[in-house]
Amino acid sequence: MTNRRQFLKGAGAALGAGLVSRSALAALPESPSVDHAGMQVPMEPASGPWYQPVVTLNGWSLPFRMNNGWKEFHLTAEAVEREVSPGMIARLWGYNGQSPGPTIECVEGDRVRIFVTNRLPEHTTIHWHGIFLPAGMDGVGGLNQPQIPPGKTYVYEFELKQSGTFMYHPHADEMVQMAMGMMGSLVVHPKDPEEQKVDRDFCFLMAAYDIEPGTMTARVNTMLDFNLWTWNSRVFPGIDHLVCGLDERVRVRMGNLTMTNHPIHIHGLKFEVACTDGGWVRPEARWPEVTVDIAIGQMRAVEFIADAPGDWAMHCHKSHHTMNAMGHDVPNMIGVDQRGVQQRLARLLPGYMVMGERGMADMGEMVMPLPENTLPMMTGQGQFGPIEMGGMFTVLKVREGQPAGDYTDPGWYRYPEGTVAYEVDTEQLTTNS
Amino acid sequence: MTNRRQFLKGAGAALGAGLVSRSALAALPESPSVDHAGMQVPMEPASGPWYQPVVTLNGWSLPFRMNNGWKEFHLTAEAVEREVSPGMIARLWGYNGQSPGPTIECVEGDRVRIFVTNRLPEHTTIHWHGIFLPAGMDGVGGLNQPQIPPGKTYVYEFELKQSGTFMYHPHADEMVQMAMGMMGSLVVHPKDPEEQKVDRDFCFLMAAYDIEPGTMTARVNTMLDFNLWTWNSRVFPGIDHLVCGLDERVRVRMGNLTMTNHPIHIHGLKFEVACTDGGWVRPEARWPEVTVDIAIGQMRAVEFIADAPGDWAMHCHKSHHTMNAMGHDVPNMIGVDQRGVQQRLARLLPGYMVMGERGMADMGEMVMPLPENTLPMMTGQGQFGPIEMGGMFTVLKVREGQPAGDYTDPGWYRYPEGTVAYEVDTEQLTTNS
Amino acid sequence: MTNRRQFLKGAGAALGAGLVSRSALAALPESPSVDHAGMQVPMEPASGPWYQPVVTLNGWSLPFRMNNGWKEFHLTAEAVEREVSPGMIARLWGYNGQSPGPTIECVEGDRVRIFVTNRLPEHTTIHWHGIFLPAGMDGVGGLNQPQIPPGKTYVYEFELKQSGTFMYHPHADEMVQMAMGMMGSLVVHPKDPEEQKVDRDFCFLMAAYDIEPGTMTARVNTMLDFNLWTWNSRVFPGIDHLVCGLDERVRVRMGNLTMTNHPIHIHGLKFEVACTDGGWVRPEARWPEVTVDIAIGQMRAVEFIADAPGDWAMHCHKSHHTMNAMGHDVPNMIGVDQRGVQQRLARLLPGYMVMGERGMADMGEMVMPLPENTLPMMTGQGQFGPIEMGGMFTVLKVREGQPAGDYTDPGWYRYPEGTVAYEVDTEQLTTNS
Repeated sequence: MTNRRQFLKGAGAALGAGLVSRSALAALPESPSVDHAGMQVPMEPASGPWYQPVVTLNGWSLPFRMNNGWKEFHLTAEAVEREVSPGMIARLWGYNGQSPGPTIECVEGDRVRIFVTNRLPEHTTIHWHGIFLPAGMDGVGGLNQPQIPPGKTYVYEFELKQSGTFMYHPHADEMVQMAMGMMGSLVVHPKDPEEQKVDRDFCFLMAAYDIEPGTMTARVNTMLDFNLWTWNSRVFPGIDHLVCGLDERVRVRMGNLTMTNHPIHIHGLKFEVACTDGGWVRPEARWPEVTVDIAIGQMRAVEFIADAPGDWAMHCHKSHHTMNAMGHDVPNMIGVDQRGVQQRLARLLPGYMVMGERGMADMGEMVMPLPENTLPMMTGQGQFGPIEMGGMFTVLKVREGQPAGDYTDPGWYRYPEGTVAYEVDTEQLTTNS
Repeated sequence: MTNRRQFLKGAGAALGAGLVSRSALAALPESPSVDHAGMQVPMEPASGPWYQPVVTLNGWSLPFRMNNGWKEFHLTAEAVEREVSPGMIARLWGYNGQSPGPTIECVEGDRVRIFVTNRLPEHTTIHWHGIFLPAGMDGVGGLNQPQIPPGKTYVYEFELKQSGTFMYHPHADEMVQMAMGMMGSLVVHPKDPEEQKVDRDFCFLMAAYDIEPGTMTARVNTMLDFNLWTWNSRVFPGIDHLVCGLDERVRVRMGNLTMTNHPIHIHGLKFEVACTDGGWVRPEARWPEVTVDIAIGQMRAVEFIADAPGDWAMHCHKSHHTMNAMGHDVPNMIGVDQRGVQQRLARLLPGYMVMGERGMADMGEMVMPLPENTLPMMTGQGQFGPIEMGGMFTVLKVREGQPAGDYTDPGWYRYPEGTVAYEVDTEQLTTNS
Repeated sequence: MTNRRQFLKGAGAALGAGLVSRSALAALPESPSVDHAGMQVPMEPASGPWYQPVVTLNGWSLPFRMNNGWKEFHLTAEAVEREVSPGMIARLWGYNGQSPGPTIECVEGDRVRIFVTNRLPEHTTIHWHGIFLPAGMDGVGGLNQPQIPPGKTYVYEFELKQSGTFMYHPHADEMVQMAMGMMGSLVVHPKDPEEQKVDRDFCFLMAAYDIEPGTMTARVNTMLDFNLWTWNSRVFPGIDHLVCGLDERVRVRMGNLTMTNHPIHIHGLKFEVACTDGGWVRPEARWPEVTVDIAIGQMRAVEFIADAPGDWAMHCHKSHHTMNAMGHDVPNMIGVDQRGVQQRLARLLPGYMVMGERGMADMGEMVMPLPENTLPMMTGQGQFGPIEMGGMFTVLKVREGQPAGDYTDPGWYRYPEGTVAYEVDTEQLTTNS
């Protein structure tokens, strides 16, 4: 999708080009991994019932193999490095090389067998959030199964009796393991591909991290004061754009595993919640929305017709969640004479500038000396200058003529003449009338 | 509405009584301003299609002019002083003299031209939240348009293809500018005035500020620990009462631009959410509610029949949000002998009393020495004594015989005899039976 | 229900077995109290219209008497001691011996008279949240009635025009009194017992406390950083299990009086919100859910068919809310050599261990020296080992053959052979294939 795009490593040839087998001859299915945050081209199934694949923002779908009527996947829980946005690496825990783990896609009626290998320093489990399955496969360590010790591989087996939007995450040392980034999307497609059909189908999960500027590891005990608000462990401008063709029907599946609600706002388009992690919402019960509040442990799949061309902002509406790491205790300097203050503050908060007497917009333009491995508080460049955002912000690009199934970034929107807010010469107006 | 009511300054005679023109001869439309927090009598349109105007709590609607088929408004972004409640002034940023800015009212099908003059020390833009318009008018600085530099005037032009409940706010240095109070309501009335008709139509926006007692300017970097929870930048007892006639159909349009959800609770009456910022909710999808949770970047218009006479509390149900500025770290003194403690605490938290051994209800009655320019933590007087509230609290007054369209405060409710909770003489009861 | 179960004290013989009268000869009705956190066997009404009683987790329903067509209850507001979970006692304020107070159950059409005696050191009132009643009975001190002074008894009288799920709490020094635990459930049954009928009907309220480890009294000024997230003032493993028979229709009524939303997640089963504190939700407006976000000052009654046998986790999905008291500022030690660090931290945070280099799962198994009167951060034992939870977590036990109306805990689920996630011998697989 982007020039950061690279290839899967470690999966067999049947699963995709450029993949190298680690266990091609073994009974254990592949556990391929990736080492980058590029978006994978949606991968149509090579075996099993057909489905229209989803697009994981800055992510990929886990290959599987059919084995005697079972669809087999292999997840490996392990320490990973995630590029949060160019310029910052976080040391997280995830699956198969990245955090979040790969999206698991299956089909209503599938019998799935999921191998989980634990390469973490402590035990773990996986809970299949929203899936109706036998209690022994539900993944709550101690309650439903023994914990999976380091070094061991466990198997989950269940039949999918439903379709919809789900996720997977540990239910063992849960606060720590989710704060470290362990999670992934789980999509179950309807048996009939015509059912709930859309033209584009995106998905991502929300995670919050507290990584002190200049460090790489999240503080796992933080309850409230996070400083990195991510979609699939990425922040603006590192989050993939959502590319759509004009008048296409689009679905965006979103799940929240942070510690607070995220009201996701999409500009320019009206949407409805079509699916929760409990199932599809009957049409007559849906509400028209431009902002959907997604609680923790909830999935919301919104659907809309992309009927307005342009570059549309899409973001969490909590204004602090569209900022990158910043000090929340910095005093307001608006209207304050700062001679001498800057030096004092710089000693307290190394790497931060005081806020201007005139607001903070300057910071979107300035090149500040930042600590290593952190991101500017407000950043991003659009065709009209600094966008002054961070965190949970990206752009939905709706284009006439975008080929079906093509996710190539089309660049900035070309505005027809006279359709952008414009400056007026007030002197002229005042004297001429 | 109240004895604090004053008049608009600066608008032309065609727009209202007592208005003085600043640019009557210019092509640029008026940008009238007010310097107080009184409620404006709802202003029926002098030109353009007719609509039933909304009532902005502690606010007003921006006059407009028709110009060759366009409805023209003029907003001026600027530093303002807002009386948060009698006894406290906040230095905020707003529009046309106050924070929030004036309500903009228009009609489905209107072509609107909105001039925005920037008198702030930094650049700004305006995003028309929820409005479906050309991408170049959407107001995200850098992405959809150039930033509006200080001193400049920009023009937004769009046609309203929808009716409903919206808001406007900057999308430039957004966290700072919204934390400073820059926002306003935007109501689009249906083309047919009989559609979605109600008898009373109130609106307000929620903003949170962190203003240290004794100071006047908000700390703009605060993410969580705000101390002033406001409706239209006002706190109890400074928030206008909502006055209704018995059995009238009433709408209250509310929007949230703070950093947390606000569950708004209305006593004594059952309501439904009739409209979101995405549009009108079909009747069969509505839920019966007494508390509506409003997420950030969401509007909720609730509707009810005012079928029960009385003084009904209406407030955010987070108990800290019905308090004014207070120290959230003060220890609990219930049951603790405090000899000597008061002095120690007073040194740490000047201006605060320690909490009583018996709870804090005493503080609703006491006259405490407060720092200048702050408000008591719990305050307000009702007909039965101290109400012990602050922040996001006001009273919905339902009265038989209140004339249609009359918003004059009718004073406290006169309870029919025997309809108030009453004391019993337990000695009497115990010995007589 | 459990071996902690004890009996009511202080109520008359007409009201239940083992009850001793304090005021049997007086006109004032009984105000029975309990001194433990055991679940009461659901108590069918001895007089008045019949209803199917609810089951209050770790609680009980307040007995009443019929008096000349009025249903009379007597609440006593007072300081109480609540066992939060075995090993920790909290000094709270509540009603009739415990926090929360007893559940009040009545029937649509009942005329109720509720006596409220204030044995607190400060004044109080009671607001009947969600009930449509005369304004003078609404309970907002100062606004709707005089405050109830210490030592006095007040009477509330109203007729119930609705059925549904409600609560009661003070509206006087509200922030303090709710932070101290003053609240109770209020259920109004439909006049026709066949209406909205279910097989099991559970209820509880959510409260958050900030009790420093080693102390017993909540810090009432805390707004955000609570450390005990409770259901009916209990935390895991002290919360009663919800016991159901296979294929029964089950209702769980939940209310939130904390300072943040709680997304309640039930594993293994799909539910709908059937009732809010505003009334019953029409079936066509309901959404399928596995997680319901409950805002503050909201009640949500969810209903489901218990169609899957097993032990199903039920919890708030905010991962910090399924932990007990912990320090949120403790740094992450994953991957850090801790020699010397433990001693330094122990001085700063007495009673806490540093988190392991390998995660925190070890803490679920360790016996740590804790301060007196506190609870392990992560705790609980299942049949497969430590469950590593705390706070708002319990287990829904669905069993084939559980007799109707029997709430006896059936022990852990017996999994049929081959239905639990299992370990595979990867060496074997790799070499054999």
